[in-house]
Amino acid sequence: MLYAEDILLARLRGFQKLTSADEALQKWLGALQIHPIRQVTVPLNEALNRVSAVDITAQEDLPRFDRSAVDGYALKADDTIGASQFKPVMLSLTASDEVAQKQAKQVWTGNPLPKGADAVVMLEHTQQREGKLEVWVQLAKGGNISKKGEDVKKGEKIIAAGARLTPYYLSLLAALGNSHIKVTEKPRIGILATGNELVEAGAMPSENQIFESNRVMLSSLCRVLGAETVDFGIVKDNLEEITETITIALQKCDAVITTGGTSVGGFDLVPEAVNKIGKPGVIAHGIAIRPAMPTALAVLNGKAILILSGNPVAAAVGFEVFGRPLICKLLGMPQTEPLPVVTAVMTKKVATTLGRKTFVRVHVIRKNNVFYAEPISSRGSGMISTLTRSNGFIIVPENREGLAEGETVTVQLFGSLEEEH
Amino acid sequence: MLYAEDILLARLRGFQKLTSADEALQKWLGALQIHPIRQVTVPLNEALNRVSAVDITAQEDLPRFDRSAVDGYALKADDTIGASQFKPVMLSLTASDEVAQKQAKQVWTGNPLPKGADAVVMLEHTQQREGKLEVWVQLAKGGNISKKGEDVKKGEKIIAAGARLTPYYLSLLAALGNSHIKVTEKPRIGILATGNELVEAGAMPSENQIFESNRVMLSSLCRVLGAETVDFGIVKDNLEEITETITIALQKCDAVITTGGTSVGGFDLVPEAVNKIGKPGVIAHGIAIRPAMPTALAVLNGKAILILSGNPVAAAVGFEVFGRPLICKLLGMPQTEPLPVVTAVMTKKVATTLGRKTFVRVHVIRKNNVFYAEPISSRGSGMISTLTRSNGFIIVPENREGLAEGETVTVQLFGSLEEEH
Repeated sequence: MLYAEDILLARLRGFQKLTSADEALQKWLGALQIHPIRQVTVPLNEALNRVSAVDITAQEDLPRFDRSAVDGYALKADDTIGASQFKPVMLSLTASDEVAQKQAKQVWTGNPLPKGADAVVMLEHTQQREGKLEVWVQLAKGGNISKKGEDVKKGEKIIAAGARLTPYYLSLLAALGNSHIKVTEKPRIGILATGNELVEAGAMPSENQIFESNRVMLSSLCRVLGAETVDFGIVKDNLEEITETITIALQKCDAVITTGGTSVGGFDLVPEAVNKIGKPGVIAHGIAIRPAMPTALAVLNGKAILILSGNPVAAAVGFEVFGRPLICKLLGMPQTEPLPVVTAVMTKKVATTLGRKTFVRVHVIRKNNVFYAEPISSRGSGMISTLTRSNGFIIVPENREGLAEGETVTVQLFGSLEEEH
Repeated sequence: MLYAEDILLARLRGFQKLTSADEALQKWLGALQIHPIRQVTVPLNEALNRVSAVDITAQEDLPRFDRSAVDGYALKADDTIGASQFKPVMLSLTASDEVAQKQAKQVWTGNPLPKGADAVVMLEHTQQREGKLEVWVQLAKGGNISKKGEDVKKGEKIIAAGARLTPYYLSLLAALGNSHIKVTEKPRIGILATGNELVEAGAMPSENQIFESNRVMLSSLCRVLGAETVDFGIVKDNLEEITETITIALQKCDAVITTGGTSVGGFDLVPEAVNKIGKPGVIAHGIAIRPAMPTALAVLNGKAILILSGNPVAAAVGFEVFGRPLICKLLGMPQTEPLPVVTAVMTKKVATTLGRKTFVRVHVIRKNNVFYAEPISSRGSGMISTLTRSNGFIIVPENREGLAEGETVTVQLFGSLEEEH
């Protein structure tokens, strides 16, 4: 549902209508031709944070054999019937591979269970006395034993296709004997910025120029998710130049992200360039989110083009809303990987606009185990420092006009969270 | 404070006493000689997730000039006195660089404010009519203008030494004209595993052998934090061989992490090897945590050696307790970077031992905006799958005997968190 002011503003900006973010995202991702996703086999120690290309099942039991779960003595459980600290049973110690009746063999955590043994008594429930072992407790069969297959059973699915390979998954893969794993290839994302006013950081700007800062942010955000990026630099506000650069970027990359030129002096240079290159071109332009309304989504040759505003905060929000799901999809993940979330209490009220999904930047702190969200000036969506001073954002839905002080909200965290004392 | 059973167990394991984790950590980190931390200047696009070596202040104002915060028309505010939708004021449009009385110039978000103008009226509060501009609202001086320095003031500290460089920090650095940044060098961590029973994943194990799986886990955990790792392979349970490998690793690396050999068949091979190499050697062995009691901390030539259990879960916990703070310190961070935390409700009770800081693995889910923590079998600390089936842990302090069902707890998250519907 859209509201009068937005419709007016959208028309003035040249948009026929604003599209809801969810609807636009679904249509865009649905129009991509990305299957089959390329796969590559890598050694485990290069697989950190990659995405598994296949379901993986255990090719054997883990542990591979019955083993002791404690430091102690392997024995036959029925030799300990009635044992207690006041009435210990006495067993003889053996060094052989097999434990016979009335015998015990010293074992340490993880050691294979000797043949003939069916339980392990813990060190602290025994005492060696004159070459014999006093056992002070009665044990059940299987006591203190890790059974073969107790951790993972042969044939059990341990990793699903599309899962992110964390350190613990890699450990489990190694424990099952895998030295390599098939992962999806890193999608290659081309990144370019447009704008006559832009100069490279490090250069000398003239009076009305500004330093370009979106490419390093966007390529970093892509790389955090596990994509590779190719930098296509700064392009002037010139239709030919933009068309040419996007054409080359599409040949070399799996997707392209641009920033700037969505509403330049009233002209939409990048969307126009994309539509000049081919069909379907731009499939949504003008999204009912704030900031980031001028975001456009396009498809050419089955590849995605994400056309972000030149405004840094709008570019950051546009990336979260569209870039993150795109890259997760290109990585072969079944769902978009979420940011960590916390539930927090608003320290102040915030006003938002009906009809727009609004991203409110907040700084969350933790105090006596309660999380508080302090809104960071939602005005000035061009202010990059509002991103570095905040550590998360709240998404206020279209049908809300703001958040109340004291209201409990869900915050998506992108920065670290300190504890305040 | 330690309790009878623990003291008994510690003695049986050969420990004179168990040391509290906090005390051991403080003593260990305090004994390291790590200053000055090496620095290196890198281009911004290679600085992602590195740690700033220095405080950084803004070398100029951001924005660099007064600019329009909206799409609209720059004008003199006093020309709009009394304007309303029913009584618009009429201004003439100019294309000149300067706005005179009764003039307006079209500007877009981010454009420099033309000379003479002191406010910007939003597009949607105007209408062009017969070459003139109707303005429907009254503006205050400074209205809809981003003032020079509004985002960041020249001389303002924007990044503190020791801060992790996230995508947004990199964007801010670029916007201020920085093309490079001085970061701390990645600490180099040597990693080795000891144990006669271990074979490399991919090899053919004999009946009683197991696949080594801790090195890939530990090196991944180090790399997630931003360290480099050097693999020293699997070493046999042989004092000479262990001594030799650790000596070489210490020459090549800033710190060494070992796994296994803290309590092998009753012998502490790795601690013994370390003590053979030099002084002070092992400064704590036997820590009052569960799992991971057999962890040892050592220092040689001012460098840290973290001696972890061969038990995978104990190695993972030992890394969180000691490895994470070590690497953060070597990276030049003022504090240990925490894992994300959530507050959750226990779905079941869990028993823990008095006198031991206990790490309870849990699987946290979110349901109707409440987080629930389901304990994952705390038995079987050798079970790697308990790490992949959980996504966080709860630290139960020494003075507690467990957690109650329904109790509210703080969970440190290491895995992703799904929403359940």
